[in-house]
This record gives sequence, C-alpha cells and structure tokens, in this order.
Amino acid sequence: MKAEDLAARYRIDKGKDFRLDKVDPSDTAGLDIEKDEAKELLAENLDDMRKQQERLYAEGKWSILIILQAMDAAGKDSAIEHVLSGINPQGCDVHSFKAPGPVELNHNFLWRHQLVVPPRGRIGIFNRSHYEEVLVVRVHPELLEAQSLPEELAGKDIWETRFEDIRNFESQLANNGTVVLKFFLHTSKDEQARRFIDRIDEEDKNWKFSPSDMAERAFWDDYMHAYEDMIGNTARPHAPWFVVPSNNKWFSRLVIAAALVSAFKEIDPKFPDVSDDEKRRMKEAREILAAEIEGGRK
Amino acid sequence: MKAEDLAARYRIDKGKDFRLDKVDPSDTAGLDIEKDEAKELLAENLDDMRKQQERLYAEGKWSILIILQAMDAAGKDSAIEHVLSGINPQGCDVHSFKAPGPVELNHNFLWRHQLVVPPRGRIGIFNRSHYEEVLVVRVHPELLEAQSLPEELAGKDIWETRFEDIRNFESQLANNGTVVLKFFLHTSKDEQARRFIDRIDEEDKNWKFSPSDMAERAFWDDYMHAYEDMIGNTARPHAPWFVVPSNNKWFSRLVIAAALVSAFKEIDPKFPDVSDDEKRRMKEAREILAAEIEGGRK
Repeated sequence: MKAEDLAARYRIDKGKDFRLDKVDPSDTAGLDIEKDEAKELLAENLDDMRKQQERLYAEGKWSILIILQAMDAAGKDSAIEHVLSGINPQGCDVHSFKAPGPVELNHNFLWRHQLVVPPRGRIGIFNRSHYEEVLVVRVHPELLEAQSLPEELAGKDIWETRFEDIRNFESQLANNGTVVLKFFLHTSKDEQARRFIDRIDEEDKNWKFSPSDMAERAFWDDYMHAYEDMIGNTARPHAPWFVVPSNNKWFSRLVIAAALVSAFKEIDPKFPDVSDDEKRRMKEAREILAAEIEGGRK
Repeated sequence: MKAEDLAARYRIDKGKDFRLDKVDPSDTAGLDIEKDEAKELLAENLDDMRKQQERLYAEGKWSILIILQAMDAAGKDSAIEHVLSGINPQGCDVHSFKAPGPVELNHNFLWRHQLVVPPRGRIGIFNRSHYEEVLVVRVHPELLEAQSLPEELAGKDIWETRFEDIRNFESQLANNGTVVLKFFLHTSKDEQARRFIDRIDEEDKNWKFSPSDMAERAFWDDYMHAYEDMIGNTARPHAPWFVVPSNNKWFSRLVIAAALVSAFKEIDPKFPDVSDDEKRRMKEAREILAAEIEGGRK
C-alpha cells in the first residue's frame, strides 16, 4: 500500500457532513502488524521522512506544523517518540501545551501558539494545541470565564467565532509556507480504560496517570461531540484533519508517518541551487585548500 | 572504558593554566572504531541516555544545557544528529544561533540565549551560543560596534566583563537546577580543509559551504587564542568545558555521549514518587475501569 493511499483514507479536508461514528477506532486498513508488509511500510516511511527532512531544512522555505489532539492515553506522546525520534532534533521542535497560566490568559487564546509556530525549514509539533480551546474549554465552560473576554464577545456564538479565528490563523500559516497537518488519534472508550489500567499496574508508568484523568473520562460523550464539531468546522484542503484509528498504536504511527511522507511529496524540497558564480568560487576555494594541506605536509 | 573515565579525560573544570595545544585533535584515547569496544561503548551510552532522559522528563526537576562550540565543519551538526537523534524529541530542544538581527542587537548580549534556556525535565542544545560573543565578536571587533553599548562600558576590559557576565549567568543556571555542559569540538586546520573539500566535492553538501567560511578560516590562529582564553576564563566545576578531540567524528560523538551519561549518573533522575493516598485512588480507579470494560462486554 502506498503512503499516499493510506493517508488519503483518513484525510478529511472538507468538514461538512463529517460524522465521527463512521470511523472505527480499531480499523487497520486490512494491514496486520504480524505480517511483514506493515513493518516494511513503516520502516520505509520513516526512512523517507528522514531524507526529506534534511532537504526541507537545507531549502529553508517551507515548514510543517503537526497538530496532535486526542483523549488521554490515545498515544500522542508515544507517536512523537516513535514516529519522530529518528528525525534530526535540530529540525524538529515539540511544544506541549498545558493548562494556560495567568500570563497566557492575559492574551488572546491563539497568542501562545502563534509565538511558537515553526520557522522555515523546520517541523513543529503541537502536542495538544489551540484546539483545546474548542474542546476542554467547551466541555467545561467555566474555563472560558477565566479568560476575561469582554462580555459582548463571549456570547452564544463563541465557538463559531473560535472556529473562524482558527480557520483564519491556519489559512495565514498556509499562505506563508507552513503546511498544517492535524491528527485526531481516535480511540474507543474501552481502549482508554485498558491503557489507564496499564498505567496503574506498571509502576514506571504511574506518573502518567492522574486521578483527574478519570474525571475527564466521565465527559467522554461531550468530548466526542466537541471533536466532531471541531473537525466539521476546521477541516480544509490547506489544513486537513486526519482522523486516525488509534486502538492499535502501530497503526496510528503508520498513518501519521504516511501523512507526513505524502506532505513531503507535495512540498518536494530540494537542496538549494548553486549558481555558476558560487561554483567558480568553490573551485577556487578547493584549490587553495588542497594547496594548504599539501604545504603542511612538506 | 567507563563513560565517566572517558569524559573525565577531556573535562576542564578549572580553567586556570589551560593550554589548548596540550590537546591533540586526533587523540582517540587508545580506542579504535574498527574494533568492537568503541562501537559497543557508543551503543551502550546512547541506550543509557535514552532511558535516563525519560526519567529526567518524568521527574521534571533538573534540566541539561548542552553548549556546542567549534570552528566550521568540526561536526556540531552531525554530533546533534548522531548523538541526539535517538532521544525523544519531546524532551529535547535545539537552538541554532546565527548572527544577531536588529531586535536582538537592541538587547544585551545574553538576552536571546536566556529566552530559550531549557525548562525543567528537558535537554536544551545550543548550536553555537553566547560564547560567540567572546569568539567571533572578539576576532572581529567591528561587530561589537553594532551592539550600541554605552561607550564607557565598551572599553578595553570588555572581554573580562563578558567572561564575568557569562560565569554569573551559568552560575545562576546551576543554582536553579540546570546542568551546564560545554563542548569545544577541537579539530586541526588541515582536517577543516579536508572537510571543506568534501563539502565542495559532494553536490548534496554544497549548501553547507559558503565562501565566507574561507574568510573565517584565515583567522584560525586568532580563533584558537580566543578559544583558549574563553575556556581558561569560563571553565568551572558547575559549568565545565569538554575539549573534545574531533578529527575523528566517531570519537567526538563518543565523548559527548559519555559526558552526558556521566551527567545523568550525577543527577540520577527518578520517576516521581506515588503517595499512599494516590495509590489508594489509583486502586479505586482501577476497579471502576475494570468494571466498565466488563460492563461493556455484556
């Protein structure tokens, strides 16, 4: 299976009529990790990514923003670790957004994210993102109060307004050379329970579990509704969502890698051209250097 | 050979009387990459680093700042790629400092570096750093003029003052939980010539070579003097310099990895403790989760 085909299968670039329940969190596109095909496909994609990233960095024109959103324990951290560990850390910045503090709340909701968008040549990863503003804040509207918005701007239409602001932000990024790729790692509620149990049972994973995770789990249906509406309102050709079946971690990694490889194919970054004048100056430099080495030997 | 012993061999933590010509850029501490010992040592160290980094991140108390300084083509970029690629990018931030622009020049020389020191739990890498202020700026004093310092502060003692400012900055970092490790990748002038020739001969490496690199090479002896003085004035037990023989890339990577492993051994990061109350709440959560999975099956 080609990377482009796998990525296309889960790509939503027109949100209208999107229904989350059409995506089975256990889907694996007919692939089986026990068979060689899936393993080879992942290895090939990772290898391809590494090569393309060097070109992206050398060319210094485009950047890529990867946004990861999901319920707790859906595999955001492990996707970063396993898909992106092989990439040169010099070309890759990860930003994890926790609950905003007083300084951040004193600015508009996009500010802290806009501060750290990836510069040209780099891959930026948002582990959670500005989308929390239409997810956790929507499920817990009391969080909106802490944002001290002028009252006439915080009315019933607030979520529509936020979707509009987010669409405009991402459209500006696209217009200026940042390729925006958004991933919702879609797990079932039962799969989350199994992963929470793992975190409780394995001592070295205890630090990843907090009792407040149970409180959020209780809002599962509200979150699913918020995700569906978010994807419906913000999936666009220049800023698509990938709704990634994530009950199997190996499969979600494969889809993320495939989406990245597809994006690189479209960007097609190249090592910078060397002008004739530069070539001439390089040739001159080469002669001087060779003579210096030779001279040192005498 | 133990990581600690290898790192100690190149560690300078009292700068007084440091002489750069005592370090042979071709030294390999008797190791030979063709033999298994060196390869195994590197693999072991990298593996150890990955495990310790997860603990550093989970504990969230200490951070590590790695500073890389060297002449062009000494292997800074490839050290980052090869030593740190295996590390989870979520716990690692690389900052490459180019020549400062107008906004940066409008602040004091440490400002842009202080903005991006690593937060707790993370490894920060400075690819070039505030040390350029006592290297390139010292070799080309006209760069100092662009900094618009009040004249009475930009006198003859300027380099002594900068060393003092840098020592105080790093001392503040150490006092607040950032372990500072500084590496000078030491190559010979001939080795630089060979690597420049490689960059000229290999088309895919052309972008790494600029004719201005030749101009800087002409100041080699001035740079060596500036490096020696810099190390002499800023090597301290809480912010040591490692003067890494770097004519052999495999060896410089090994020394950097060994220094990191040694630092981790001293920090000895641990997964956060779980209190009895948290254990009780985890147990309760586990029962609820198991019942939910079971309930879903009926």
